[in-house]
Amino acid sequence: MFKKISPGQNIEQNGLLDEITNALCMPDSLNTVWRNIPPNTASLSVDALAEIMQRLKAAIFPGYFGKPTTNIDSMRYHLAAKLDSISPLLRQQLVAGLGFGCAGEGLPCMNCEVEGNNKALDFMKKLPDIRHLLALDAKAAYEGDPAARSVGETIFCYPSIIAILYHRIAHALYELDAPMIPRIISEMAHSQTGIDIHPGASIGKEFFIDHGTGVVIGETCIIGHKCRLYQGVTLGALSFPKNTDGSLTKGIDRHPVLEDNVTVYAGTTILGRVTIGKGAVIGGNVWLTEDVPAGARISQK
Amino acid sequence: MFKKISPGQNIEQNGLLDEITNALCMPDSLNTVWRNIPPNTASLSVDALAEIMQRLKAAIFPGYFGKPTTNIDSMRYHLAAKLDSISPLLRQQLVAGLGFGCAGEGLPCMNCEVEGNNKALDFMKKLPDIRHLLALDAKAAYEGDPAARSVGETIFCYPSIIAILYHRIAHALYELDAPMIPRIISEMAHSQTGIDIHPGASIGKEFFIDHGTGVVIGETCIIGHKCRLYQGVTLGALSFPKNTDGSLTKGIDRHPVLEDNVTVYAGTTILGRVTIGKGAVIGGNVWLTEDVPAGARISQK
Amino acid sequence: MFKKISPGQNIEQNGLLDEITNALCMPDSLNTVWRNIPPNTASLSVDALAEIMQRLKAAIFPGYFGKPTTNIDSMRYHLAAKLDSISPLLRQQLVAGLGFGCAGEGLPCMNCEVEGNNKALDFMKKLPDIRHLLALDAKAAYEGDPAARSVGETIFCYPSIIAILYHRIAHALYELDAPMIPRIISEMAHSQTGIDIHPGASIGKEFFIDHGTGVVIGETCIIGHKCRLYQGVTLGALSFPKNTDGSLTKGIDRHPVLEDNVTVYAGTTILGRVTIGKGAVIGGNVWLTEDVPAGARISQK
Amino acid sequence: MFKKISPGQNIEQNGLLDEITNALCMPDSLNTVWRNIPPNTASLSVDALAEIMQRLKAAIFPGYFGKPTTNIDSMRYHLAAKLDSISPLLRQQLVAGLGFGCAGEGLPCMNCEVEGNNKALDFMKKLPDIRHLLALDAKAAYEGDPAARSVGETIFCYPSIIAILYHRIAHALYELDAPMIPRIISEMAHSQTGIDIHPGASIGKEFFIDHGTGVVIGETCIIGHKCRLYQGVTLGALSFPKNTDGSLTKGIDRHPVLEDNVTVYAGTTILGRVTIGKGAVIGGNVWLTEDVPAGARISQK
Amino acid sequence: MFKKISPGQNIEQNGLLDEITNALCMPDSLNTVWRNIPPNTASLSVDALAEIMQRLKAAIFPGYFGKPTTNIDSMRYHLAAKLDSISPLLRQQLVAGLGFGCAGEGLPCMNCEVEGNNKALDFMKKLPDIRHLLALDAKAAYEGDPAARSVGETIFCYPSIIAILYHRIAHALYELDAPMIPRIISEMAHSQTGIDIHPGASIGKEFFIDHGTGVVIGETCIIGHKCRLYQGVTLGALSFPKNTDGSLTKGIDRHPVLEDNVTVYAGTTILGRVTIGKGAVIGGNVWLTEDVPAGARISQK
Amino acid sequence: MFKKISPGQNIEQNGLLDEITNALCMPDSLNTVWRNIPPNTASLSVDALAEIMQRLKAAIFPGYFGKPTTNIDSMRYHLAAKLDSISPLLRQQLVAGLGFGCAGEGLPCMNCEVEGNNKALDFMKKLPDIRHLLALDAKAAYEGDPAARSVGETIFCYPSIIAILYHRIAHALYELDAPMIPRIISEMAHSQTGIDIHPGASIGKEFFIDHGTGVVIGETCIIGHKCRLYQGVTLGALSFPKNTDGSLTKGIDRHPVLEDNVTVYAGTTILGRVTIGKGAVIGGNVWLTEDVPAGARISQK
Repeated sequence: MFKKISPGQNIEQNGLLDEITNALCMPDSLNTVWRNIPPNTASLSVDALAEIMQRLKAAIFPGYFGKPTTNIDSMRYHLAAKLDSISPLLRQQLVAGLGFGCAGEGLPCMNCEVEGNNKALDFMKKLPDIRHLLALDAKAAYEGDPAARSVGETIFCYPSIIAILYHRIAHALYELDAPMIPRIISEMAHSQTGIDIHPGASIGKEFFIDHGTGVVIGETCIIGHKCRLYQGVTLGALSFPKNTDGSLTKGIDRHPVLEDNVTVYAGTTILGRVTIGKGAVIGGNVWLTEDVPAGARISQK
Repeated sequence: MFKKISPGQNIEQNGLLDEITNALCMPDSLNTVWRNIPPNTASLSVDALAEIMQRLKAAIFPGYFGKPTTNIDSMRYHLAAKLDSISPLLRQQLVAGLGFGCAGEGLPCMNCEVEGNNKALDFMKKLPDIRHLLALDAKAAYEGDPAARSVGETIFCYPSIIAILYHRIAHALYELDAPMIPRIISEMAHSQTGIDIHPGASIGKEFFIDHGTGVVIGETCIIGHKCRLYQGVTLGALSFPKNTDGSLTKGIDRHPVLEDNVTVYAGTTILGRVTIGKGAVIGGNVWLTEDVPAGARISQK
Repeated sequence: MFKKISPGQNIEQNGLLDEITNALCMPDSLNTVWRNIPPNTASLSVDALAEIMQRLKAAIFPGYFGKPTTNIDSMRYHLAAKLDSISPLLRQQLVAGLGFGCAGEGLPCMNCEVEGNNKALDFMKKLPDIRHLLALDAKAAYEGDPAARSVGETIFCYPSIIAILYHRIAHALYELDAPMIPRIISEMAHSQTGIDIHPGASIGKEFFIDHGTGVVIGETCIIGHKCRLYQGVTLGALSFPKNTDGSLTKGIDRHPVLEDNVTVYAGTTILGRVTIGKGAVIGGNVWLTEDVPAGARISQK
Repeated sequence: MFKKISPGQNIEQNGLLDEITNALCMPDSLNTVWRNIPPNTASLSVDALAEIMQRLKAAIFPGYFGKPTTNIDSMRYHLAAKLDSISPLLRQQLVAGLGFGCAGEGLPCMNCEVEGNNKALDFMKKLPDIRHLLALDAKAAYEGDPAARSVGETIFCYPSIIAILYHRIAHALYELDAPMIPRIISEMAHSQTGIDIHPGASIGKEFFIDHGTGVVIGETCIIGHKCRLYQGVTLGALSFPKNTDGSLTKGIDRHPVLEDNVTVYAGTTILGRVTIGKGAVIGGNVWLTEDVPAGARISQK
Repeated sequence: MFKKISPGQNIEQNGLLDEITNALCMPDSLNTVWRNIPPNTASLSVDALAEIMQRLKAAIFPGYFGKPTTNIDSMRYHLAAKLDSISPLLRQQLVAGLGFGCAGEGLPCMNCEVEGNNKALDFMKKLPDIRHLLALDAKAAYEGDPAARSVGETIFCYPSIIAILYHRIAHALYELDAPMIPRIISEMAHSQTGIDIHPGASIGKEFFIDHGTGVVIGETCIIGHKCRLYQGVTLGALSFPKNTDGSLTKGIDRHPVLEDNVTVYAGTTILGRVTIGKGAVIGGNVWLTEDVPAGARISQK
Repeated sequence: MFKKISPGQNIEQNGLLDEITNALCMPDSLNTVWRNIPPNTASLSVDALAEIMQRLKAAIFPGYFGKPTTNIDSMRYHLAAKLDSISPLLRQQLVAGLGFGCAGEGLPCMNCEVEGNNKALDFMKKLPDIRHLLALDAKAAYEGDPAARSVGETIFCYPSIIAILYHRIAHALYELDAPMIPRIISEMAHSQTGIDIHPGASIGKEFFIDHGTGVVIGETCIIGHKCRLYQGVTLGALSFPKNTDGSLTKGIDRHPVLEDNVTVYAGTTILGRVTIGKGAVIGGNVWLTEDVPAGARISQK
């Protein structure tokens, strides 16, 4: 697509290309940065996962994304064809993700094939539930934003819907113990929306985030039904316990719990395994590291 | 592009595909998430709108985006050809957006056709004015950022220019009462820049936002000339009045007014229908819910 | 791809297309927004730079991005072929960037050709060092995030890795005095991650930013080794000195210095040429405009 | 994708571009070569018809072309989805083809819309019959060529199958009185295979052409069942009767009739409305302008 | 796009890849098959020439190929923009074609740049004449084929129109002494239509070839106005005189001359520098190596 | 890409889509035309084979096709990378081709995996020899055509080179007993050039076909070195022996043998297992079914 234009020394000349290539291929240099795929093994691919997400989006919101259809009978055919195209793609990526851990041994991992297949089917079975939750989320977005003119508008473009759509899918895969992939999916939504929800977070029905840029929701958060967050809200960890060898302890419950109907306004930070009681309203720019009782209204001092 | 690899049960087997398809096609489940397009009707499409925005960008900043040209005579031809390609695309999307509301009736909407056509032409007529404003915005970006080396650099990559480019277009369509589309366009800029400007906001000449991530500008904001914002500034609503049925009242003036020459530093939040007087400077991390007189300098306490 | 559908007036009719084209081609109107490329000159292109970045990414993290390979011997061939494809593309863009300044004269700039070529080769020689630093950054990301399960996970999708990858490349080009291009590359990362690092900033080894959205790192920042930032941290300028003519003075040291092992928690703002001493820990939501001694722990009052 | 490289005069200079454009836009010059589409009318498109043919090919030979499927239940979904995508495309092209005749009037043709829709549905209804005939043709190809190893091999790549596939579709549209389109489809097969069958020709079951290059079958040919042709066979017209004004009389029966089980070897030419009787075998390089009785064996003298 | 699937030896193993690469890189082996492009030189490209031909086709038959337009004013813009895009592409290829001869010297050829530029502009100036001839050819195709329903049908799909379109362009470039490119263009038409016209052949107005497959028209043919050929006609050379060293003498007049109004029916072969007089009709399958007087009717004996 | 436009009945309405789908899915109807791929099995694909051929073309004629390179060292890298990309693709197709025969059993064929892998490697080892032969063929094309100006011109566009390139590859795979694929490759060349060479044909060094359209070379032909054919030459079978059950006997030697240095002029047909002796010249339009002695000159009577 591009072309060299004018006179002067070239990278091929004087062995420069060889030299740089050699430097980049020194085993030392490759350590950490090189992923050595065993021969004839499926490869984990961000592009493949992005394609899967596009198809899932069209399967979940038919008519909004993907080909529009005009009656329920033809929609049925298109939907089934799409599901049938998603399943093997997802399976291949799940196998590759599982194989990531045994990559050093240089052999395709047969267990990964079987396990990846089962996880793909298990995920597909969850789709109707995921769709049901997302329909409720779209309704919540419409009801929660005075600027929204219709539910459809929120589905077409609200960052809240993108974030929760990717999260509910990533979370389902997280619960199936699929390695790597849930986080890759979460980061896709983070990049598009500025909303960073760890796939481990548990989120109830009718969830809505307004504006959203800068929101962070940590791995062990538990969020109840009908909660609402605004931009710049952090539900984070207060400190990271370390192991005796100085490394971080992974997997400890360290993020807040929000009970049902909690609202948190813009720029507020809630840190640690605290509980925000049912119906509490936390104002903007608040810094909070303690429990809040049900129904409380906390604001910046 | 991808392929199933190894043994094991398949989604087509044991009726699993049928079962999931059935679950996803139950009328109940489809409620909310299914957009039923009347037969033979244009379809609102995020991809089509993205394409329109790319072409508008090239028409507005010739040489920066799209094909470079070497003199004004040939540029003229390319520009006209581009405008002639934008107009019917935009029209089709405007018709589809207008038809979104009557989609339930199952018939193409003839009024939408006529109205959509008129709105498309009205928008095209506004292009010279939009371009004029954007030229001033680019100059403001260059003058406002000590790191900027040329006006061209700001056009090529400053998030402020992307945000205001998309906004001025979205706002023009908002003023033409085009449904759905202005918000979709705004969210494109929000996703790219982290700057969330509602298409309803009214913004004066020579506007500049530095860095920009996390900025929120609400629907009924009015911003004067030569204003400047930094990252993380919110111009939001203080509270949402509800109707007697508990639903939010939509469309009330609820966001700040900034008069000319106002500067708001990073992380500051201004909420409600307050007025920030001419030339006022609001420091960083300020929380503000009251009017500020002209020329005032407010900072964090 | 799209098509006009129904009756009504067309943009071609009644001279409307001519009229709008004329308005957009008035010399006055073109001032600022038109980049007049001299005949037969390479053109600075955001798309070309994006393609270069994709290829560099695959050269730096082989197996993660680009084609997977199964042993070191074949990887060597693919890597060399990729480098050989990057070099002329980069060169062309560097020439175009250099030519941006002399565009008014209407002639291809021969000096730009020579200088651009040299800069491209100089950059290519820096690649092994850049890769070495990025390997350390990936390790730091894994060690710094309790949610990370493997170094590979951070390479695949952590915004910190994207931000620092783009930054280390942009910074190398900045040091080679390449105009325009470093900033365009920085803004690509800013758009993807919400992390805005000016290409001029100097950043030490094992750098990590958690979550990242809203981080701003200014042009003259100096950051030591093993530093760690969280979302929403600003390392900015306190004020912009002006020249006697009222314009901003460009290029003055105006951003913070962070010594080794400094940690800055979420939402904190540090402004001006202050120094944060070795090992200091700055808590969340802090507003800081003064020096901090080594080992200090500063938190919100 | 390409770029001007070096010094010298440009087409934009000295008004050359204007001059050539003017010459090509003189009304006189445009006569014949310009197709003036009425505003907002579908446009006859060779690319669209090629896409339709690809989809029909995949619907007719599932597994050979298009996505492979592993059982009959999932195939059913994919097939229905494909048919549902073909129907509106075909309809649009049929409308455009019908409108070709009234293009001068500058208005979309409402009759064309209705008629095009009906023809599209009528064609779709014929698909099962067309497929049945093509299955027999594939069997005939396998049985007729000693080099064929399986029926599948003939479906994958035999020019005979391509030619008869395109013909049976073109002929069905020809019988529906669709203008323009049948011939465009025939020429696609002609270009791929060197076999030129006019869409008007009537061809019976189990038809096979070996090698095929140079075969010509005229508009009014009638070919019975189980006939076989070789490369370079012409079934043409002997002379073209003219009208009193000297123009050619169009639509007269002027090409040969082949009864069942006729074989014609390579390079033979049969001209005029002659009848080749049942089971006749015509040798290679024969020049024939008279009837041949059933069972005869004719060879080069 | 594709992926290795299962166990077994790989090409990278046991040095096989190295071995084959070495064998293919032995200087001896590269002789003849390797085109060594001087650094920073444009490259002759079949794909680029195909793209140029697509654009020329759309410029010559607006509305048939490329974007349809609805009135002459907007068409003018699109046409000029297209011409402006063709000119530099063509120029680049002409430069590359001219440079093909001096490729061994390892330096870009400055003369080629200048000469290529001039030839590109000279070609562009010929476009109006080429279009005029092609309009007459389309009329001739319609009048010459009883199966043609409209002139438009012949433009859309008749192989005769493709062949003569490519020929008239290739011949114009041949007359400008452009090396390589005319023949590449001719072979594109040959591949699509089975009609092989050497770019050197001189062909008069209103030319028509029916069916066309297998037609061969040699380099030094001269064909008058209103001539008509059928499939399988060869206008070839009788023998190839050799130089004293045994190599073929290139460039001698060795192909037939057809005066105005000559018709040659299918399968006929005319060899050598013979003249077929005005209005002569040569029947099918004739073998002819002698002059034919004006008005004669020759048929197979 | 296309869209339904206007009112009227739809294929989804009244169950029409269901009805046609049902008809096309009746088991009877699917017989012959449906290729049932076992779950998780690679699929034979014409598109994949076309991609392989493009890459082989670039590996064999570097600089003519694919990316141009400027010295032998960088070419080496690109070539190795290309070979490394061809090998797994070819392997996958060979596995799929082998599996075509056992497709009915519904299980992936493990033998096919091993055998396909071996055949792919065996083919790759033959590449240097294939390239050597093609270099000689290009030289022969240049020497054999008085209109050729350079060897390079023949490589760029002569149908003879395309035909023999595809044939030498197809023949190598034929000799490795790869099912299906050799014929698919041959038909690609047939479609492009009108030259139909069965992959089984054995062809010596320095082979050239001028013009080529209509040439047919049968499966069991044996052609010596330095032979030359012209357009429309058939080397075919005289008759097809049948088995006792009436089916054709497959695989018998039934096509001509041409010894070294034989020339056959345009339109000549040679049928049956006859031998044309060394150096013989067969004139145009000859019909030949008997042996010809060495050095003979045969012409049309």
